[in-house]
Amino acid sequence: MITYNVAILGATGAVGREVIKILEERNFPVKEIRLLATEKSAGMEINFRGMNRVVEVAQPGSFKGIDLAIFSAGSSASLKFAPSAVKSGAIVIDNTNAFRMDDSVPLVVPEVNPKEIFKNKGIIANPNCSTIQMVTALKPIYDEVGIKRIVVSTYQAVSGTGKDAIEELKRQIIQYTKGDKLTSKVYPYQIAFNVLPHIDTFHENGYTEEELKMTRETRKILDDPELSITATTVRVPVLYGHCESVNIETEKKISISHLRKLLDSAEGIKVVDDPEKLLYPTPLMSENDDNVMVGRLREDYSIENGINMWIVANNLRKGAALNAIQIAERLILNE
Amino acid sequence: MITYNVAILGATGAVGREVIKILEERNFPVKEIRLLATEKSAGMEINFRGMNRVVEVAQPGSFKGIDLAIFSAGSSASLKFAPSAVKSGAIVIDNTNAFRMDDSVPLVVPEVNPKEIFKNKGIIANPNCSTIQMVTALKPIYDEVGIKRIVVSTYQAVSGTGKDAIEELKRQIIQYTKGDKLTSKVYPYQIAFNVLPHIDTFHENGYTEEELKMTRETRKILDDPELSITATTVRVPVLYGHCESVNIETEKKISISHLRKLLDSAEGIKVVDDPEKLLYPTPLMSENDDNVMVGRLREDYSIENGINMWIVANNLRKGAALNAIQIAERLILNE
Repeated sequence: MITYNVAILGATGAVGREVIKILEERNFPVKEIRLLATEKSAGMEINFRGMNRVVEVAQPGSFKGIDLAIFSAGSSASLKFAPSAVKSGAIVIDNTNAFRMDDSVPLVVPEVNPKEIFKNKGIIANPNCSTIQMVTALKPIYDEVGIKRIVVSTYQAVSGTGKDAIEELKRQIIQYTKGDKLTSKVYPYQIAFNVLPHIDTFHENGYTEEELKMTRETRKILDDPELSITATTVRVPVLYGHCESVNIETEKKISISHLRKLLDSAEGIKVVDDPEKLLYPTPLMSENDDNVMVGRLREDYSIENGINMWIVANNLRKGAALNAIQIAERLILNE
Repeated sequence: MITYNVAILGATGAVGREVIKILEERNFPVKEIRLLATEKSAGMEINFRGMNRVVEVAQPGSFKGIDLAIFSAGSSASLKFAPSAVKSGAIVIDNTNAFRMDDSVPLVVPEVNPKEIFKNKGIIANPNCSTIQMVTALKPIYDEVGIKRIVVSTYQAVSGTGKDAIEELKRQIIQYTKGDKLTSKVYPYQIAFNVLPHIDTFHENGYTEEELKMTRETRKILDDPELSITATTVRVPVLYGHCESVNIETEKKISISHLRKLLDSAEGIKVVDDPEKLLYPTPLMSENDDNVMVGRLREDYSIENGINMWIVANNLRKGAALNAIQIAERLILNE
């Protein structure tokens, strides 16, 4: 069996730790693993396959001999280290926003546009978490009846922001139960018992960067630059798992029973939709399920060809680490 | 000054307690107050204007001499007691679903359709919480440029379910911090750190009763039986304050600057929309603000005449108790 030298940049972050876990779970053919981070986190030890590995400070020379580098240490780290990693002969799978809209960089969800993987020139971009789960669920519909317009509102977990945000929500919950004042550092307002219609920075047109990411990444992945889509992205006091309320206007009519069958047979999707038994996807469910879960399938009677659906996935796994490793798996399958 | 004998049915519930507080705050001309509840809660004492009042068991005879009865003890209690209250000469303002779609019963948001109040035949219905805040924000737009279609996704606080649900979320938070198992009684799944796309019962078409309420009540209040509207209603782990992500297709174009002025000058609405200063409405804000707050005003580029907005209000106050008392205030203004 061919094995690979793998580097993880951002190994101590919420996504990086998930990457390490998934490499183990899926028995990815790792020869050697190199854990990299900024100076702040270097020196920490992380267990991989029963052995503690020391996290090293990332440097341009860190990628010598590396076959595959998975980056999730933020856009600036990606911009800084991708060129040297590629020069060293590694293929970079980048979880950040740094290269996603670069025309020479494939933006890939393996269930949706796997062929793009092989057009890479050294870098493959992993889409934004909320985009990944939405396009995974939309792709079968797009292929079957065409999509005219998408209106999406999200319910995103704090782990999407990173481990400081997980700690912030947990700290605020403890402060609340103790009757202490709730303190906020990561978010501009309290997130416990609150909802913030604000993810990433604001643009002049009133949209957040997250909302624009969902728009432009969906268009790139579906290879439909004119696709009509509008998004409202919202943070909720949940630890893991993003939810999306998605309204879709299709080109041709699709019945709900046909839609259910279509999604049920699609790769990477699990239909959880039995209202009579109170079955619908929740973010808690996504902690133990790697599928993109869809439910609340309904005809939208307000337009001729409309459907409503509820899409849930684990933002750290399918929304980030798992998707990256699924890209890597396809990549090596070809060798 | 004319004063009124007021009865509160469901006085010990989350909305009932808010009704009592608001009667005090707004100095409603109460002559005598009669606090009513089911046997379970009767005997409790609640303070009104500095005096403890004993909550009595509601009986058909309880409304003798009452001018105004505010009901929030559930639909079956409303169906049971409204006839005798009306027969006794009281005007009933009903917070439940019992009479909302009854053609002979006005369904009123005072900022939207105040004239309906005076068409009452003894009962005036208070709309569902999520409907009230949405129609308040939509009405100025509806009048100015017309509304073609509405797509709404909600983020609703547990207090909308009642005080048992408030206790459930608080209990689960405490169980979490103690490392205990989280127990659920009110909701079918854990609500702490979770999101449930499920409010009220499911219908055969896949919609929840809450979603259908938003559709039919909005049509009735705006007096537009054909209005195109589709809703997804969702429970989030928030104590007080409902949020709504609303996508609107207008008949005629409206610029965001014009929309902002329009909403800013409308009664009962407060525009909280300055992304540069990270200002947008949140449910926590609604704990200290009786307005319907709107923000995240954006042009929706996916259609010709589209806007996105974020609407937040205190579900127990504007969404229930306050709206009921505002109806009562208009009613007595006329006398």
